[in-house]
Amino acid sequence: MEDNLELLKTLTLKNEKKIIFLVIDGLGGATEPSTGKTELEVAVHPNLDKLASESLCGLAVPVDFGITPGSGPGHLSLFGYDPVKYLIGRGVLEVLGLGMELTENDLAFRGNFATIDSNGIITDRRAGRIPTEETVRLVGKIQKNISRIDNVEILLKPGKEHRFAGVFRHPDLVENITENDPHKEGNKPHKIQPTVDTVQAKFTTEVVNKFIEEVARLLKDEPKANYVLLRGFAKFPNMPKMQEVYKLTPAAIAVYPMYKGLAQVVGMQVIHGCETIQDEVNKLKELFTQPYDFYYLHIKDTDKLGEDGNFDGKVKKIEEIDKIIPEILSLQPDVLVVTGDHSTPAVNKGHSWHPVPVALWSKNPPTPRNNVKMFTEQEFSRGMLGIVHMTKILPLAMAYAGKLDKYGA
Amino acid sequence: MEDNLELLKTLTLKNEKKIIFLVIDGLGGATEPSTGKTELEVAVHPNLDKLASESLCGLAVPVDFGITPGSGPGHLSLFGYDPVKYLIGRGVLEVLGLGMELTENDLAFRGNFATIDSNGIITDRRAGRIPTEETVRLVGKIQKNISRIDNVEILLKPGKEHRFAGVFRHPDLVENITENDPHKEGNKPHKIQPTVDTVQAKFTTEVVNKFIEEVARLLKDEPKANYVLLRGFAKFPNMPKMQEVYKLTPAAIAVYPMYKGLAQVVGMQVIHGCETIQDEVNKLKELFTQPYDFYYLHIKDTDKLGEDGNFDGKVKKIEEIDKIIPEILSLQPDVLVVTGDHSTPAVNKGHSWHPVPVALWSKNPPTPRNNVKMFTEQEFSRGMLGIVHMTKILPLAMAYAGKLDKYGA
Repeated sequence: MEDNLELLKTLTLKNEKKIIFLVIDGLGGATEPSTGKTELEVAVHPNLDKLASESLCGLAVPVDFGITPGSGPGHLSLFGYDPVKYLIGRGVLEVLGLGMELTENDLAFRGNFATIDSNGIITDRRAGRIPTEETVRLVGKIQKNISRIDNVEILLKPGKEHRFAGVFRHPDLVENITENDPHKEGNKPHKIQPTVDTVQAKFTTEVVNKFIEEVARLLKDEPKANYVLLRGFAKFPNMPKMQEVYKLTPAAIAVYPMYKGLAQVVGMQVIHGCETIQDEVNKLKELFTQPYDFYYLHIKDTDKLGEDGNFDGKVKKIEEIDKIIPEILSLQPDVLVVTGDHSTPAVNKGHSWHPVPVALWSKNPPTPRNNVKMFTEQEFSRGMLGIVHMTKILPLAMAYAGKLDKYGA
Repeated sequence: MEDNLELLKTLTLKNEKKIIFLVIDGLGGATEPSTGKTELEVAVHPNLDKLASESLCGLAVPVDFGITPGSGPGHLSLFGYDPVKYLIGRGVLEVLGLGMELTENDLAFRGNFATIDSNGIITDRRAGRIPTEETVRLVGKIQKNISRIDNVEILLKPGKEHRFAGVFRHPDLVENITENDPHKEGNKPHKIQPTVDTVQAKFTTEVVNKFIEEVARLLKDEPKANYVLLRGFAKFPNMPKMQEVYKLTPAAIAVYPMYKGLAQVVGMQVIHGCETIQDEVNKLKELFTQPYDFYYLHIKDTDKLGEDGNFDGKVKKIEEIDKIIPEILSLQPDVLVVTGDHSTPAVNKGHSWHPVPVALWSKNPPTPRNNVKMFTEQEFSRGMLGIVHMTKILPLAMAYAGKLDKYGA
């Protein structure tokens, strides 16, 4: 299941052909027992069906059979990177997603504002999901008063509701430490501990514990949120960039921070300012005249509805997404891939291990006739692409776009 | 085609859901030229067909395309271990299968009683397949007289007919030596030779040759069997156990020694006392109330009939096995996998490289609708599972049983 980046790097060619990856988060579904049908089988999606009938179709395995991918591994696989080899910590994704700059000296993390009682017991891990404005104010207060611990610089940024993220900046920081989130109300927060016995891990532990203590002192009289829980400590991943491996000039169009963060990790130009699917399509149109040759367009809503177990909602969302397919095709991309980063069946109420439908459409040369008439998991399982590892899709798209040279004489 | 044990180990969860692997040895067949049909296509097996229509179906490759697996590699792959990475010598399987204890200091082997003439020529490699009682007596005689060579302890146990197995016990023994079996009557037995130039290999060679010489002296006046041929020298394999990798509590129900031995190597609790298929099913029922969560049930007969080239016999045996499917389903397992360790087509008269049919049935969540109506190789090649490596089946079963956590954020 390994990627073949070292080989690909020697074969990639630069040309002006444009590839679009339309990534419908959590696209794949599973059989709802009462009807025996999946979300894609119930939804009416004539445009996706027509696209499928003209595409190379199959099912893709993001990590391995039986493995349920998080968003990080799912996306790395989409971008052609073996997600077992390359790991990206959650803190890094959050920080990048919020548009913060991240350097090699940074230890990134994500945080929640929480409430703690006078006995030191966490009473609400999310501080009643305080409004974003309150988080903005609290983060500002902390940033103003605690911008440094010893020689370590601290940079914070508010997220949505009770969430924020940040970095500790110092060359000796490492990610080998535990979290302070007890993961259940009614417990005391944990003390951060080193997970390896090194000077750097001890130093990092001391800094982070001091920061948490200072924040607790600073916020102790705040009425709504008087504590912070920090998780997902992670250093910037050292990965080859898409420019370097694929010689692509990639742009990322996404609404949510994490997906922008993921795109930045692999070297994409992140496009900001989209709030809706239509915003994203409009942005794609606008950028299509610019010299990008790879467009990653991420649609989040299907995943959220799957996570909520909302079968009908996911069906409706698929039908809504179906309507943007002609708009995207009207841009005349050279290659259009429609897939997801993983499956999120409503029956699972979460990400799942089910392989993800993939349709790869190419203008010239066209993909082979497929005998696939419907954009469904079932139909795609008999598609000509077969059942493949997700890391193979980007190289295939590159091949159809004439961006891969012959290997060997 | 590699396994992903290191990753899986970090994701496995313990729960009470129960997985059954019904392993029909040599299940897969091949086209009989006069009818154009395989054993599974000729056999009438309504219960397997119904199961297939409700299962995730496909074909599994035990080792690699074109590779015919022995029972060892076939089973390791079934249990999720890459059979190219993990090797188990035949001697180890025999010794474990006979219920002998095996330590890290042991060099295991299997032996045949043979007959040799006064010129030192092997006249019968199996000593006329002497009855088991005779082997019991001869093994007793050797064990009594030759329990030690130099500092090396020797432990023997009789098998069926002319077969026996044993271990040489000493920390310096290695498996890098040749066999003495000339594999054809009319030849002299080979001298054991080291296959590597090490002190340990020379020491091992000397010990084993001395043992064979002493046995020949001891048995020289025996009327039926006066020589031993030793093969399959192997040390105990150092493999991660199923408890450790999968957090499973596995039980193995099998009739034949080798399959019990294989199960023991991967850490299963081996259940003894079964002689027939119905014994095995009864034992499964009995054990189903006990706190096991993985049941390996091995059926040997299909393989033997395939090896004999007995197409009709294998067809009948499949029809017989079909009748136990409702009994097994009545136990209400959470996941039932019906497959084989390899194919043994009657037309091949032996194991073959043909991918093996796999049906994976799950109670909740159910597996996707498959459009597979018949339990045959042909139908399964269009199943939604596709054609996958056999090592992927156990992780998939784990996923359906809720025993695998999400990978990454």
